[in-house]
Amino acid sequence: MSQHEPLGFGHPKVQRLRRLVGRRSARYDEGAFVIEGPGLIAEAVAAGWSIEAQFVAPGGTPVYGASQVFELGVGVIERVASTETPQPLLAIAAMPARSLGDLVRPTFIAVAAAIADPGNLGTILRSAEAAGAEAVVTLAGTVDCYSPKVVRSSAGALFHIPVIGPATPADLSAMGLIVVGTSSHEGVAYSEFDWTQPVAVMVGNEAHGVSDDLAVDARVTIPHRGRAESLNVAMAATILCFEVARQRTHHASRS
Amino acid sequence: MSQHEPLGFGHPKVQRLRRLVGRRSARYDEGAFVIEGPGLIAEAVAAGWSIEAQFVAPGGTPVYGASQVFELGVGVIERVASTETPQPLLAIAAMPARSLGDLVRPTFIAVAAAIADPGNLGTILRSAEAAGAEAVVTLAGTVDCYSPKVVRSSAGALFHIPVIGPATPADLSAMGLIVVGTSSHEGVAYSEFDWTQPVAVMVGNEAHGVSDDLAVDARVTIPHRGRAESLNVAMAATILCFEVARQRTHHASRS
Repeated sequence: MSQHEPLGFGHPKVQRLRRLVGRRSARYDEGAFVIEGPGLIAEAVAAGWSIEAQFVAPGGTPVYGASQVFELGVGVIERVASTETPQPLLAIAAMPARSLGDLVRPTFIAVAAAIADPGNLGTILRSAEAAGAEAVVTLAGTVDCYSPKVVRSSAGALFHIPVIGPATPADLSAMGLIVVGTSSHEGVAYSEFDWTQPVAVMVGNEAHGVSDDLAVDARVTIPHRGRAESLNVAMAATILCFEVARQRTHHASRS
Repeated sequence: MSQHEPLGFGHPKVQRLRRLVGRRSARYDEGAFVIEGPGLIAEAVAAGWSIEAQFVAPGGTPVYGASQVFELGVGVIERVASTETPQPLLAIAAMPARSLGDLVRPTFIAVAAAIADPGNLGTILRSAEAAGAEAVVTLAGTVDCYSPKVVRSSAGALFHIPVIGPATPADLSAMGLIVVGTSSHEGVAYSEFDWTQPVAVMVGNEAHGVSDDLAVDARVTIPHRGRAESLNVAMAATILCFEVARQRTHHASRS
C-alpha cells in the first residue's frame, strides 16, 4: 500500500475517479478510463494494458504487481462506481493511442455506426473478437467504448481487440475494404454475400439502422423466418461476424 | 372502465398482480402471468393471446377492446411492477396449455437446459423465433419463461413461438429429433454439422454448460478465433439457430 490513510470521497484522486467513470470528456481529456472489478482488471493486465493505479475498498484485494494501490474509505466506492453494488476494486487504465494506420491490410473489420446502447456495443466487441475480426471501428455517434457499461459488457473483449474511431466509411474504403451495411429490410441475404473478400461489416443505430447518408458498397439483410423485428443489433452483429468466420474457414479448407 | 374508484395497493386484485409478478408458484397455481407495458400487451393481443384484465396507472391508456380494465391509484404500479420506472399499463394473461404432443413431426426445436438468466432465455426465444424454430423446449432448472424479465427481454417473441417444458432429452429423442448439445470446448465445429436433419439444438447453463448427465446424440462447439470464453450462451444460441436456418435455405435452393 502506498499510503496509510484511506482516501475519503472528497480526495482529489477520488474525485478524478468519479469524473472518469461519469464523463466521456474527462476520459478523453486525460487519456484514461476506469475498469471495475478484479476480474476485468486482471484480464486487462494479462493483455498488457497499462494500469496507472488501483483503488481498493474495504474487503477488496488489488491485482498483484499491477500498479500503485490506494485504499478507499468505507462507503466511498459506492459513490464512485457505476454499479449499485460494486466489487471492491477499481483501476485507472491508460487509453491506448490508436488509429486506422495501425491496421496493416485489414481483411475483417466490424463497424459500429451510431450504436447508442452500451450493452450492444459490448456485445459487438465480444462477437467481433471471438469471430476473429482485426478491429472494431466506431463511426460518429457511437457510445464511448471506454464508458463503464461498455467495458463491463464487453466481458474483457475490449482488451483483446483494438477499437478505433471515430472514422468514416470513406476511411475504410480507402484501406481497400468493401463496406457492407446491414439493413433490417433490404439488401442481399447475408449468407449469399461473399465474406471472403476484405470487408468492413457495419451495423447501425438501434432505432434508425445504418443511415442512408453513409456511403456503403453493399447492403445485406438477415432474413427472418418468424415475425419481423425480433433481432436486435447485437444479435445481428453476432450472426454476421460468425458468418464471415464460417465462410473463411470453409474457403481455407477448400483451397 | 369497469369501476370508478382506482384500486389501492391493498386491493385483492392488486395483491394478486403482485404475486403473479413476483412468484413462479403463484403463476403456475393460477395459470396466469403478467405482461408489462402497452407495446408487449398489444403484441400479445395481436398474436391471439387471451388477456384477462388490464390495469392502467394514471397517465396510461389500455389496449382497446382487449379485456376488462381496472384503474390503479397513484403510486400503486410502482409497488407492483418489476421495473423501477414502469410503463403505466399491466395486463394479466392466461398461460396457454402446451405439451410436446402439440408438435407434429418437428424438425427444429431450440432447447434451454438449465438457463438461469432471464435475459439469456429472452434472447434464446428471440433467436429461435426469428430463425424459424417450431418451439423452445425448457429442461429442468430453466428460469420461468413467464417471469417478467423473460417476457420483457423476449421482446414479444414469447407470443409467437411455443415454449414447452419441463421436458427431458429422452422426450425429444422419442419425437425423432437428433439432440445436439452445445459445448464451449468439445464436439464438431457447428458449421460442419448437418442441421438439415430434424434437430433439437440444446444450450446449457451459464456456468456449467450442457450437463454431462443429459443424454445428447451429438455435441457441437463454436470455434473462437479470439480469446476463449467471450461468447455467452445467448450469443451461442443465436449463432446456432441461424446456422440451422442458413443450411436449410441453401439445402432448399439446391434441391
